[in-house]
Amino acid sequence: MREIFYPSTIAVIGVSAKEDNLGRNIVANLVEYGFNGIVYAVGPSGGMIETRRIYRSVGDIPDHVDLAVILTPAKTVPMILEECGQKGIRWAIIETAGFREFTEEGRQLEEAISRVAKKYEIQFVGPNCIGAINMENGMCVPFPRLTKFVKQGDVSMITQSGGVGMSALNLMANEGLGLNKFVSVGNMLNIDAEDMLEYLITDEGTGLIFMYLESIRDGRRLMEIARRSPKPVVIFKANIGELGRNIAQSHTASLASDDKIVEAAFHQAGIIRVSDATTFGNNLKILGLPPMKGKNLAIISRSGGHAVIAADATELAGFNLAYFPESFLREIEKHFRASVIRLTNPLDLGDLFDLNVYAQIVEQTLQLEDVDGIVFLHTSLSEAENLTSRRLLDHMIELVGKYEKPVAYYISAAAEEVNYLKQNYDFPIFTQVVETIRALEMSHRYYVQAGKIRTKAETPIYKVNRKGVKDLIAIAKEDDRDLLISEALQVLEHYGITTVPSLIAGTVDEAKAAAEEIGYPVAIKIISEQISHKSDVGGVQLNLRNSSAVAEAFEEMMGHILQAYPDAKLDGVLVQPMVTGGRELILGGRQDPQFGAVILAGLGGIFVEIFEESQVRVAPISQRAAREMIQNLRGYQILAGARGHKPVDIEAVVEILLRLSQLLVDFPDIAELDVNPLRVFYEGEGCRALDARIILS
Amino acid sequence: MREIFYPSTIAVIGVSAKEDNLGRNIVANLVEYGFNGIVYAVGPSGGMIETRRIYRSVGDIPDHVDLAVILTPAKTVPMILEECGQKGIRWAIIETAGFREFTEEGRQLEEAISRVAKKYEIQFVGPNCIGAINMENGMCVPFPRLTKFVKQGDVSMITQSGGVGMSALNLMANEGLGLNKFVSVGNMLNIDAEDMLEYLITDEGTGLIFMYLESIRDGRRLMEIARRSPKPVVIFKANIGELGRNIAQSHTASLASDDKIVEAAFHQAGIIRVSDATTFGNNLKILGLPPMKGKNLAIISRSGGHAVIAADATELAGFNLAYFPESFLREIEKHFRASVIRLTNPLDLGDLFDLNVYAQIVEQTLQLEDVDGIVFLHTSLSEAENLTSRRLLDHMIELVGKYEKPVAYYISAAAEEVNYLKQNYDFPIFTQVVETIRALEMSHRYYVQAGKIRTKAETPIYKVNRKGVKDLIAIAKEDDRDLLISEALQVLEHYGITTVPSLIAGTVDEAKAAAEEIGYPVAIKIISEQISHKSDVGGVQLNLRNSSAVAEAFEEMMGHILQAYPDAKLDGVLVQPMVTGGRELILGGRQDPQFGAVILAGLGGIFVEIFEESQVRVAPISQRAAREMIQNLRGYQILAGARGHKPVDIEAVVEILLRLSQLLVDFPDIAELDVNPLRVFYEGEGCRALDARIILS
Repeated sequence: MREIFYPSTIAVIGVSAKEDNLGRNIVANLVEYGFNGIVYAVGPSGGMIETRRIYRSVGDIPDHVDLAVILTPAKTVPMILEECGQKGIRWAIIETAGFREFTEEGRQLEEAISRVAKKYEIQFVGPNCIGAINMENGMCVPFPRLTKFVKQGDVSMITQSGGVGMSALNLMANEGLGLNKFVSVGNMLNIDAEDMLEYLITDEGTGLIFMYLESIRDGRRLMEIARRSPKPVVIFKANIGELGRNIAQSHTASLASDDKIVEAAFHQAGIIRVSDATTFGNNLKILGLPPMKGKNLAIISRSGGHAVIAADATELAGFNLAYFPESFLREIEKHFRASVIRLTNPLDLGDLFDLNVYAQIVEQTLQLEDVDGIVFLHTSLSEAENLTSRRLLDHMIELVGKYEKPVAYYISAAAEEVNYLKQNYDFPIFTQVVETIRALEMSHRYYVQAGKIRTKAETPIYKVNRKGVKDLIAIAKEDDRDLLISEALQVLEHYGITTVPSLIAGTVDEAKAAAEEIGYPVAIKIISEQISHKSDVGGVQLNLRNSSAVAEAFEEMMGHILQAYPDAKLDGVLVQPMVTGGRELILGGRQDPQFGAVILAGLGGIFVEIFEESQVRVAPISQRAAREMIQNLRGYQILAGARGHKPVDIEAVVEILLRLSQLLVDFPDIAELDVNPLRVFYEGEGCRALDARIILS
Repeated sequence: MREIFYPSTIAVIGVSAKEDNLGRNIVANLVEYGFNGIVYAVGPSGGMIETRRIYRSVGDIPDHVDLAVILTPAKTVPMILEECGQKGIRWAIIETAGFREFTEEGRQLEEAISRVAKKYEIQFVGPNCIGAINMENGMCVPFPRLTKFVKQGDVSMITQSGGVGMSALNLMANEGLGLNKFVSVGNMLNIDAEDMLEYLITDEGTGLIFMYLESIRDGRRLMEIARRSPKPVVIFKANIGELGRNIAQSHTASLASDDKIVEAAFHQAGIIRVSDATTFGNNLKILGLPPMKGKNLAIISRSGGHAVIAADATELAGFNLAYFPESFLREIEKHFRASVIRLTNPLDLGDLFDLNVYAQIVEQTLQLEDVDGIVFLHTSLSEAENLTSRRLLDHMIELVGKYEKPVAYYISAAAEEVNYLKQNYDFPIFTQVVETIRALEMSHRYYVQAGKIRTKAETPIYKVNRKGVKDLIAIAKEDDRDLLISEALQVLEHYGITTVPSLIAGTVDEAKAAAEEIGYPVAIKIISEQISHKSDVGGVQLNLRNSSAVAEAFEEMMGHILQAYPDAKLDGVLVQPMVTGGRELILGGRQDPQFGAVILAGLGGIFVEIFEESQVRVAPISQRAAREMIQNLRGYQILAGARGHKPVDIEAVVEILLRLSQLLVDFPDIAELDVNPLRVFYEGEGCRALDARIILS
């Protein structure tokens, strides 16, 4: 892939002398960016542009060519590529549009291109893209005419949309963020976004990778590469609306929307997701600093108001205001006329502006073990301060290098000065207080997650009755149906998940007999497809302690329901032992087209139904990931025993998640799986699946 | 108040010829901004600056003075103000710091200042502020040396922090937002933020008011003024961390944190709250356009990728993609070579760039009744387009004026061009797609809420037994205690809120007798201060259908609990009729120091406990507000009968909220009130309070 970004000779194909010819722009861009190689122009009409010959065909070029950049009408591309192949060119960027994205004919043209590429072993970017840039060697081949608007740095970008890519470059230019490589991958007929990522994680000049994606072709591969990346991978994943509309039969499946899975997969792979331009800019900036390793932030501010805003944001980010020990404060005090400074965190510097004192305070603060990072809020009120401010910034850069802790440098000053700093310093300049602290929060989250990914996590393999499940699925497939509830519960038992015994009763007498068999107290629940919320209509009677209570409750229930739903078809009642105590969870999973088996956990009942609070992961999951799923549930505190609640058996749930993960990976035939509810009892008492559903693909 | 912003003569007091004198800056700023009045410099050392005499005292000025701007050492201020009073000056801005915010001595100085001001009827801004600006007449008196960095417009700003105010002005300058008036109110010893707001809502030059507040002095007054304001009021309310830490005895009170009340009060008063710089900038911009009256947005884009991002954001904002009728699309099609455009919403303009066609499409789209607003996403790829782009912008401005619908104009272009547009057009220029649509969402929300505030809403007054409540409170106050549970329930009954009968039983026999009296089935619940979550330890037994079931359940319960909590003091059990069906809510209220009586509603149980999902309003509330509280609860769908649930009696809850609101307003002595739980039954069946708590102030 290096050949795409570091060619010695480039042939730009599709150049003419016409004023509005786009191929001309490409040649001009290469000149403007100072490409350190040879450029040949090619176009059927021949002639010349700006003292340069236009060859009628690549075949006419009297030199070896490393890379062809093609921008000719779609119909001509297969033939042009054939000529490239004959010439011995093995790498190309096809910028031409009008293929698969456009018509059926375009799709067929793509097939023709693929055939030629295969024949000559040509690898190419595109078609339907705006090309690539390498700031290191001036390789700049997008077709819009570009000035050198963005500075060189270590951010590389892979984009599925040329337009969004250009906007992102504009933002980077505006924020003083430096670019290393840029590539617009277009239709990804040959080289795709994942291939590019694979290349860039080992590319020397690249320190950080940003991707704009509208689709994910191979989710597992994307995850796998990102996990290996020693560099931060930041992705803006758009097109979430379309994806949200997935049609699913079971409850779990509809909860695990494609976008939730993307979210989970990115988390598992340590990918940083951004969803708006502000976050994009600030995250890229913060990643240019050492990571925020802990949660203790020091705020140093020249303005009391800014300090207040920063303290609010610190709390909202889940950070702590780092503790300043008495001895440190006494040291700090020495720098000041006692009256000026508010000696606490946030540290209000008052009106004093002494470069050396500021730098000393920042250094002393960085030396505190308890401090993981600093936000320095600099409000420059007049031009007279600009030069001193710049020297202060030099100092900050030095200190960040020395202590390897982040100092997020915020400045409020006139636009000219802020821009000067952004353009002339290789150091992030922040201009929004709250957003800066949000970025530090991301830095910390990324640091923690990247650390987790680098440490091995155990994924136990349980001894299960795989054969038993295989047989049950085979029988159902033969009948062309999904599993019955009884079979679904059996599948769980085969995988070591305990279920609860349930007897079906059609009459009072059957109910009484069932209760005797199960033992008191019992619960009875109506069985009817028409009644989705049993308890709303008196369809659940709990705590029945003797035979007459069962009889009375049965009659009452039937009476109520027939009154409320005279047309409902009632299939009797389910008699179950009274299961008390603990909490209800919903667990499940499904097969996702991009990411394969995924697994889900949520708090049961209306929590998951209305609040849609659930945690999703791509399977298989490790013990750590399973535990994290439970811990990340909103409402986890109840499970863990907060506020006087009794803690439930979380380790038992973790094990069941792992067993379900194993089941879903073992049987891709299971399209959707619901364990709803799983009753989890108090610590050490385990869990029981009360109901289950399995849908086959 | 006009006198602060429109003086004819200003005395700047505290000027000297010294290089670092801040008073000099004020005089220089007035010159720089072209103040259209007379400026006198005053300072004890006399002399001159820049050909201007420095008078030793205001008394020496041979002219009438309208406004004194004071920046002299804190200790001297009372005396200086005395001299101003004698000179007949009635308005002042005191910029000096070092008062109440600093020391006890400073607080005493403030008292001295207040006495002088009272004596001479002087009204003043400050102390401890950076002054004021009026762009209309060049009245610019902040002490930092300022260039004319921000353009003139219709945004006026009131800030409690000078530093944050200056940063906000920098942001406005950078975003091309025009300023009308600026005032830093400092310690608000005399004129406070609410006074300034009162003035600005009738100030002709002001079209929009932004406030930065770290505290709210009189919440009810702020609400009252904002409700009257015909202009949008945007507030950044900081210092939420400190406020969050309120100590409360009852559950309701701890849920209604001060910041939640601020949020509610702002909503009720139609105040737009912002919490970061990005939102601040984009909201100010969007408010410069006609309001987004409905939810139907049209996206017109030159880049497919931008259209995808915008469509995602539209969905997340709760907007719809406006429907484009067939006839409209056919009209649009005529403008194009059929191949270029994707005829749908988002409308992808492809590669075509014809100013007239763009303008025509935008106009035709604005004409569609179904379209409430447009996002126009303009990606300018080269400098060559700049001039045409500017003409397009002229067209857009015209169309917005003509159709009174918002066209949010986004542009991605080189920084120079974007800045040119921001500085030279009196029209908002957006540069972030997602953030722009979020701003449109705010525009719509504001439009709806402002409309509601302008239409009358009924607040019924119920006939209640006020005397009964008064007596109960009097008795409790005499005993220096809060109300007992039985009394609290009685209070509710006095205010027309039905409660449930409950009998207390200490032994099995008492429980059986109570059950007979109440009638089967019954529920029994343990009474013990040590056990907060009864059901976790088997402390709740439901559905007891006969005498032997009661006895068995009683013994079992006592056995369980004594095993789990051998030291718990058990006060017997509560025997209640079995209340089945419906849902549990928690209602309540408290007295807030800033806003007075507030009322709260939440879904019961762990919803409110863990998710802290609740709705708060400042009382008294209207019927509409009460209904909105319920409707805005996350989980409202369950109450309303979504997904097969039976709808509950929402109107009954609305009435109870209104009765509680009346109670809290009638009795400011009620510091905290909890109705937890309120059981609401199915439609038409009403509610019952199962438990209540009232804490007196």
